Amino acid sequence: MKLSEQERNERTAEARRLIHWSKEEFDSDQKLLRGQPPLVKAQTSETVVPLTREFGGLAMENDFVKILQRRRSNRVFTGERMTADQLSFLLWATQGVKGIRGNHYATLRTVPSAGARHPFETYLYVKSVEGLKPGYYHYLPMEHSLELLREEDPEKKDSAQRITDSVRGQKWALRANVIFYYSIVPYRGEWRYAFNAHRVMMMDAGHVTENLYLACTALGLGTCAIGAVDEEVGNGLFGLDGTEEYIFYAAPVGTVSDANEEQEQAFYAFLKEK
Amino acid sequence: MKLSEQERNERTAEARRLIHWSKEEFDSDQKLLRGQPPLVKAQTSETVVPLTREFGGLAMENDFVKILQRRRSNRVFTGERMTADQLSFLLWATQGVKGIRGNHYATLRTVPSAGARHPFETYLYVKSVEGLKPGYYHYLPMEHSLELLREEDPEKKDSAQRITDSVRGQKWALRANVIFYYSIVPYRGEWRYAFNAHRVMMMDAGHVTENLYLACTALGLGTCAIGAVDEEVGNGLFGLDGTEEYIFYAAPVGTVSDANEEQEQAFYAFLKEK
Repeated sequence: MKLSEQERNERTAEARRLIHWSKEEFDSDQKLLRGQPPLVKAQTSETVVPLTREFGGLAMENDFVKILQRRRSNRVFTGERMTADQLSFLLWATQGVKGIRGNHYATLRTVPSAGARHPFETYLYVKSVEGLKPGYYHYLPMEHSLELLREEDPEKKDSAQRITDSVRGQKWALRANVIFYYSIVPYRGEWRYAFNAHRVMMMDAGHVTENLYLACTALGLGTCAIGAVDEEVGNGLFGLDGTEEYIFYAAPVGTVSDANEEQEQAFYAFLKEK
Repeated sequence: MKLSEQERNERTAEARRLIHWSKEEFDSDQKLLRGQPPLVKAQTSETVVPLTREFGGLAMENDFVKILQRRRSNRVFTGERMTADQLSFLLWATQGVKGIRGNHYATLRTVPSAGARHPFETYLYVKSVEGLKPGYYHYLPMEHSLELLREEDPEKKDSAQRITDSVRGQKWALRANVIFYYSIVPYRGEWRYAFNAHRVMMMDAGHVTENLYLACTALGLGTCAIGAVDEEVGNGLFGLDGTEEYIFYAAPVGTVSDANEEQEQAFYAFLKEK
């Protein structure tokens, strides 16, 4: 049932209130010396695929100014070859660990995070990446490797439908070589910031996806991040509880070509109707 | 008065609910064909400083992989020279307009934004930038220029105190050459997404600051974004109403040196006490 305009407006006003930094005083769990949540989610699978940290061999546009100029959203993928080494670079650029601060107090990564809480986990649906079996993976940032959660033939019945459902019907995602699914573990931020955690964790998510856009551009790949995910479907894909950890963001990544510009523009056809 | 733990937990649970994408149906103002809000805030000052779009002459580490490796948070600034051309690059990299989609339907920028709504305005407190008078500015992204809102001698009484108050006492910000203050104009996102706008607008903010970090790294500058701003003080600096537009994020930028590593580490002294 559709919300009335008044209900919609009340909900909108509530959401607007929640993006302010609150000045109210409170003791955080950190201040109360309650145990810090783990920096990363523990490995659960025995099948681990190590990833390279050597990116010198990758064909790459490495000119930062050109990358900024060229970055765009891509929803049309060519279906060409993509490699595990390219994927490795994308994972490192978005969540790679560069160091540890204190006695496991925080990870220092290729992206900043408020209070260095880094409240995300990266999951992948690999459809077509050379060197990796198709299926579902979880990134282990400490080791810079992937654990295989479960293999899945992309041709398997219902597989495509579940992926499409996870991004609320955005069918173009099916043509990606790999889909990044980001989960959030809210307590990592709440431990330090309580009710002020959520807006800065969303900002942190933007740090991650901005680097994903730029790293894709460098490699001649493309992406378009999707905020409108179906969390329940996404949680089901990776076995997440939906409360202490849930999928909140997705980014299909694939090979792109300037020759597809007309198809890309078709996504904005609604503007011509005006 | 400090919140009780129960109050804190209720507020935290409420904030956590608000970072989900809601599946509830509603008609957006966009769907109801209500007028689109302006893409950018109109110019109000007659004093406009044009900025260069030519960045070839800037001394820059332009190697993207190295920039990712080197990016870090900086809170210690050397107080050395910074130029208007460097500032121009930072503004372009974070909010620069690359094109217009449709009949003024959207701006395409150096950063992505959900639905291309780009709900931010960039304000500056310029303390020490060669080629610019000290004072308060507003960035005009369409023209890639700055409008001077008001000159101010940094030595003026109370000037430093107001700046420190705006970032809730983080005194290191005073040593920056320039402080970026970002405002949000919530209705730009709400027009299209209503109560689902706020979480994606916070993600968009992260796109902006990630590019700021990277562009600073390229130029040998440093920054550390501050989510914990004092909105009222920030709004006062730039004459914002606090409802339809308010300062929600700040990022002091200054010249940095590896020689200050010890001072940078002093910000993490609390870890040694453990």
